[in-house]
Amino acid sequence: MIPKVRPSVRHVVSINDLQVEEIESIFELAQKYLDELGDPNVPYRIGRRRKSHPASDNVSDQILATLFYEPSTRTRLSFESAMLRLGGEIITSADPATSSAKKGESLADSVRVVGNYADLIVIRHPRDGAARLAAEYSPVPVINGGDGSHEHPTQTLCDIFTLKKKNKTLKKLNVAIAGDLKGSRTIHSFVYALARFGAYIVPKPAPGMELPPHVDRRLREEFQCTFKTGQGSIDAVYQTPNEPHQAALFSEPDFEVSVRSANRELTVKSGARDNKIAAVYVTRFQKERWANKEQQYPKIDAEFLKEAKYSKASVLHPLPRVDELDVALDSDVRAVYFEQAAYGVPVRMALISLLLQIEGGLARYEGGFSRERMPIYDQALEVGLRCTNHNCIVHDETEAPYVRNKFHLVRTSGHPRLRCLYCETDMESFAIASKKNKWYSTDPYDLGKIPSNNLKDFIFFASDAEAQENGFHFKGRHGERKSS
Amino acid sequence: MIPKVRPSVRHVVSINDLQVEEIESIFELAQKYLDELGDPNVPYRIGRRRKSHPASDNVSDQILATLFYEPSTRTRLSFESAMLRLGGEIITSADPATSSAKKGESLADSVRVVGNYADLIVIRHPRDGAARLAAEYSPVPVINGGDGSHEHPTQTLCDIFTLKKKNKTLKKLNVAIAGDLKGSRTIHSFVYALARFGAYIVPKPAPGMELPPHVDRRLREEFQCTFKTGQGSIDAVYQTPNEPHQAALFSEPDFEVSVRSANRELTVKSGARDNKIAAVYVTRFQKERWANKEQQYPKIDAEFLKEAKYSKASVLHPLPRVDELDVALDSDVRAVYFEQAAYGVPVRMALISLLLQIEGGLARYEGGFSRERMPIYDQALEVGLRCTNHNCIVHDETEAPYVRNKFHLVRTSGHPRLRCLYCETDMESFAIASKKNKWYSTDPYDLGKIPSNNLKDFIFFASDAEAQENGFHFKGRHGERKSS
Amino acid sequence: MIPKVRPSVRHVVSINDLQVEEIESIFELAQKYLDELGDPNVPYRIGRRRKSHPASDNVSDQILATLFYEPSTRTRLSFESAMLRLGGEIITSADPATSSAKKGESLADSVRVVGNYADLIVIRHPRDGAARLAAEYSPVPVINGGDGSHEHPTQTLCDIFTLKKKNKTLKKLNVAIAGDLKGSRTIHSFVYALARFGAYIVPKPAPGMELPPHVDRRLREEFQCTFKTGQGSIDAVYQTPNEPHQAALFSEPDFEVSVRSANRELTVKSGARDNKIAAVYVTRFQKERWANKEQQYPKIDAEFLKEAKYSKASVLHPLPRVDELDVALDSDVRAVYFEQAAYGVPVRMALISLLLQIEGGLARYEGGFSRERMPIYDQALEVGLRCTNHNCIVHDETEAPYVRNKFHLVRTSGHPRLRCLYCETDMESFAIASKKNKWYSTDPYDLGKIPSNNLKDFIFFASDAEAQENGFHFKGRHGERKSS
Repeated sequence: MIPKVRPSVRHVVSINDLQVEEIESIFELAQKYLDELGDPNVPYRIGRRRKSHPASDNVSDQILATLFYEPSTRTRLSFESAMLRLGGEIITSADPATSSAKKGESLADSVRVVGNYADLIVIRHPRDGAARLAAEYSPVPVINGGDGSHEHPTQTLCDIFTLKKKNKTLKKLNVAIAGDLKGSRTIHSFVYALARFGAYIVPKPAPGMELPPHVDRRLREEFQCTFKTGQGSIDAVYQTPNEPHQAALFSEPDFEVSVRSANRELTVKSGARDNKIAAVYVTRFQKERWANKEQQYPKIDAEFLKEAKYSKASVLHPLPRVDELDVALDSDVRAVYFEQAAYGVPVRMALISLLLQIEGGLARYEGGFSRERMPIYDQALEVGLRCTNHNCIVHDETEAPYVRNKFHLVRTSGHPRLRCLYCETDMESFAIASKKNKWYSTDPYDLGKIPSNNLKDFIFFASDAEAQENGFHFKGRHGERKSS
Repeated sequence: MIPKVRPSVRHVVSINDLQVEEIESIFELAQKYLDELGDPNVPYRIGRRRKSHPASDNVSDQILATLFYEPSTRTRLSFESAMLRLGGEIITSADPATSSAKKGESLADSVRVVGNYADLIVIRHPRDGAARLAAEYSPVPVINGGDGSHEHPTQTLCDIFTLKKKNKTLKKLNVAIAGDLKGSRTIHSFVYALARFGAYIVPKPAPGMELPPHVDRRLREEFQCTFKTGQGSIDAVYQTPNEPHQAALFSEPDFEVSVRSANRELTVKSGARDNKIAAVYVTRFQKERWANKEQQYPKIDAEFLKEAKYSKASVLHPLPRVDELDVALDSDVRAVYFEQAAYGVPVRMALISLLLQIEGGLARYEGGFSRERMPIYDQALEVGLRCTNHNCIVHDETEAPYVRNKFHLVRTSGHPRLRCLYCETDMESFAIASKKNKWYSTDPYDLGKIPSNNLKDFIFFASDAEAQENGFHFKGRHGERKSS
Repeated sequence: MIPKVRPSVRHVVSINDLQVEEIESIFELAQKYLDELGDPNVPYRIGRRRKSHPASDNVSDQILATLFYEPSTRTRLSFESAMLRLGGEIITSADPATSSAKKGESLADSVRVVGNYADLIVIRHPRDGAARLAAEYSPVPVINGGDGSHEHPTQTLCDIFTLKKKNKTLKKLNVAIAGDLKGSRTIHSFVYALARFGAYIVPKPAPGMELPPHVDRRLREEFQCTFKTGQGSIDAVYQTPNEPHQAALFSEPDFEVSVRSANRELTVKSGARDNKIAAVYVTRFQKERWANKEQQYPKIDAEFLKEAKYSKASVLHPLPRVDELDVALDSDVRAVYFEQAAYGVPVRMALISLLLQIEGGLARYEGGFSRERMPIYDQALEVGLRCTNHNCIVHDETEAPYVRNKFHLVRTSGHPRLRCLYCETDMESFAIASKKNKWYSTDPYDLGKIPSNNLKDFIFFASDAEAQENGFHFKGRHGERKSS
């Protein structure tokens, strides 16, 4: 049985589950907590505290559970520290090898049970989309502490908070992102947030580690980024319009119109404020997510940062680092990564407070960013198109009874897309089949013609062949009939 | 050195360490806590709490230690949540591989030390009887969180609590138990409790996974269950008399009399209320306790439950489940297993409260069910009969200096038995040797003739051969002399 | 970047980081806590507590982090229990395999980050000197919970506390130490403390497991112990003068004088009070630190303790024990090891209180024992002499960017020595090279001639050959020139 999503429980699985205004609220509260805790940048002083003057004593009755199916110190301990500094309590399952997972228990069952032991669950998992599955089943709010290569939204909150402390606004700020842009969930959450806050993204991928196609496309189509290739000292960059995504994502667009505007070159009026890079965000090689573990990987060091455009660039890193960030930079004034790590506690305190509705709560932003507005296709696992991402949670055998083939029907400025509800990978090709008329089409634009409330009359298949095997005949592209 | 059991410290190793009245007290308190926490069946509401209004603030000064030598999420986290919701604190050793056990430390030493760090210890261990050994050495109360295939009493408390919420009384209620009845410690604790609460037990074992002989015999002999094979739609069933076990277990029976009544067919007056099954209790295949891990295993699903007698059967499962319980049942009104799991917190809160004497305490029931009344045979490990259960804690090399060959002399309605004090396995055969007279006997009825306070004058051997090797001569069965 | 040590943050890495007066303060406070908790030696009583009457409520806002890179139950749980009994909170990383260390994170980075999540860090690590490295980088106090074979100072606090409870003073008390004196960090911290408190040390090593040379030499040279070989019933013993180490270590000695007194036989006026052994301290074979794991190892049992001189000897053991301490001794009145383990909580409570400045604090003893007074040689890792202890943290590849070749220049009653700042191993031989004059010398006495503030003008090499390879020429011993 697949439970209905309880509308009153807010989850933070993707950074896009939070509206910009919500993120601003989180930062405001985080700054308040930071003032109380003592800024990590002022010299160490003993007696930092928070608990004895809680804004509300509600939290002292609540329990945070950390369910970590992948190694972590930083994320887990910072969440736990945040909950304790708020006055709450923690229960921890830090090691999959010592948990019920070893007896073959599904994630879905685990969160349903632990949701009765705790008031909030933080989950980390090696599978993309695992946190969304957990959220579907949990009776209490779920926070994604990192799921496969998908997202790591609370890291992004710390990152954006750090950038906002260093720069008045993120609008048109040039932010370079360096390293494994493909495997890093941190990067994926981060670029969405950058685009939504109006920053310009300057990709510096390690060889072969570019942003995944579906992330690239979302930046272009949904966040209306324009990709400009560099000239002279200007890097290739994703530029965002003044009011990114507002029109496109908060209302369901007129489909025909947005399709036509797909290839329109957005005119960015003034460009970045200057050619200076305001921040370089470095990530480690996500070795655990790559088959070839011996790849060449760039190192950010004083030499790299000697170029004039980096002269005032803050250097960020989600940590842990391995070799990609020179330790010698630690004493450089541009290094802000330990500060960034320290912000983990107040930022997570704020998120917890709001989710548990201790201080106002996030309830008024119900449904988050825009997800609710996207129609959902929902079929049994045995039928038709399956997510093509092999690391997606839908392919985890243990979870098979708990997942379905679920896709968001995304209608944005590009052509309409099917996106896995769990891991948010876009399906590259598929066949749309009408149960009623027994025809199928491989034209993605036909997707746009399906009324949202009629989705249950259609089945998606992975290919022509699969559609035909299931007894559907080709309708043709724009009326033309294909010979099988 | 084997320490004396401290009479003022209560342990819960077996469900039989608790009297029926005590269990009722636990349930009463659990219901009170449940009312405060919010019933897990009412729709989710934020702000569930308990801590700010503790019944007594004593607990806020106390620490619960969870010592888990086997994987667990559910049991450990529910105990920890319970302690925190009471306002107490927790320390955790969740992984044997990161504990002193890796340096070769014995369980006996571990609990003696941790008993000075905490006020209550919950232990889980792969060896049968490990919790009893821990209780022998611990200066603070020990709760068995599951020991090998032996028992899991707090799971049973949750199970019985759930059944009692669904049915006014357990008297003559038909409760089916399905799956691995042999390897499941949960089942073993459960059937004793069912018998004691007067329910009828309907066994539905997976092939080759019947109740172990010593459990079967205890049901018949000590809990006065009558085993009836089914006719027509009626299943084979263990029936319990109106006042099960009261006479048999709370006073030391006249031995001769009870022996004579061993084969008496107990007349059950009215039988079960009807032929309906009130509950089906499903357990997973305890793969970790079986050599052959690829056995056939029945699945409980809508098909199975279609029979008329199951039309109102609650479906229970201790979780985690693997494949033996169809996920499609989750939406069936008969499914109560998530509710059952949710009761884990208030039930364990109540048990902790009573053991720590926060709310009245269990002290007045000193000694528990009936254990104290059974004479104990106690010999050095090097001498004579050893427990025949190879997974018993007495066979763990690390514990060798801390255990002895200890057996309860059980005199019930069957013939007298020797039962391992740790794992409660009955010895199938043995020789009784008199140190004084140098004879031995293999007649178990001779066991009944030994006065309780003369046990130290006897040695038990595993066989004729062993007795003779040690210089004893055969006394014969009823006076007859065997030629060696 | 190697950070400067923050003078206001006190760390306890070695027992020698604490002055004798500080240790006395810790014991005084520990006794107060013990009175409140209930003495572990009085029969068990329920309701032991501490939290509800905290001496100060400051601690309730503070968090202790336990970072354990090696298995432990006792040390970790006793620290956690201590923090909780004080009213504080805990966060735990108990298993290196589930932490960021698995992603290749350095210890230096870890403590810098965790130092923002917690107010105090307890660290355990398999490498000698790891705790000192952690202390160099941590913004909050670091307590060494055991680092390789180096030290385990809080165990020693418990040991000395136990001895002081049994004996009015440690002055001239004969304390035997038995077993693996080489690999046991517990022993190393313990013997320094014994010497400083004026006890006589009677070594009873297992074959081939004598005190390491650098520990032996420190006892003789820095703690002014005289080693006397036994006669008759008197054992070989390290004797300490009436005022051990005071003159030698608290002021920088006149170098020439102390050299001359190096071989002086110190006249111990009265000798031990009698030939009785007051305590036998037993340690397990530190299998994990030895290549040959099948060595012969003595067992302390009733037989061993039958000798008259042991008739009143307390038997101590840091636990866990394996086979080296007979379980049969547990009921012997001389066995105090469980008592010793129980003291772990109040003693650690006291240390935490003082480090967090809840009760007065240790601040007035800034700098600890005597370390600050020793000049430090500090060179990049690539240059010259490296620590010769292969298990020293400086040889851990992950830490390479964070460590340097750092040595204390030790000038005591023996000849001057170079001692690794991390693991405190003395370098057996080295070459002293003058950058200015391009000569080098292999005469250790030349070390004593270098003015403390001129150390940066010198480089140390491992050998003649290395010095010559780097372009230095031999200066000769006492003016003599060696032909290369």
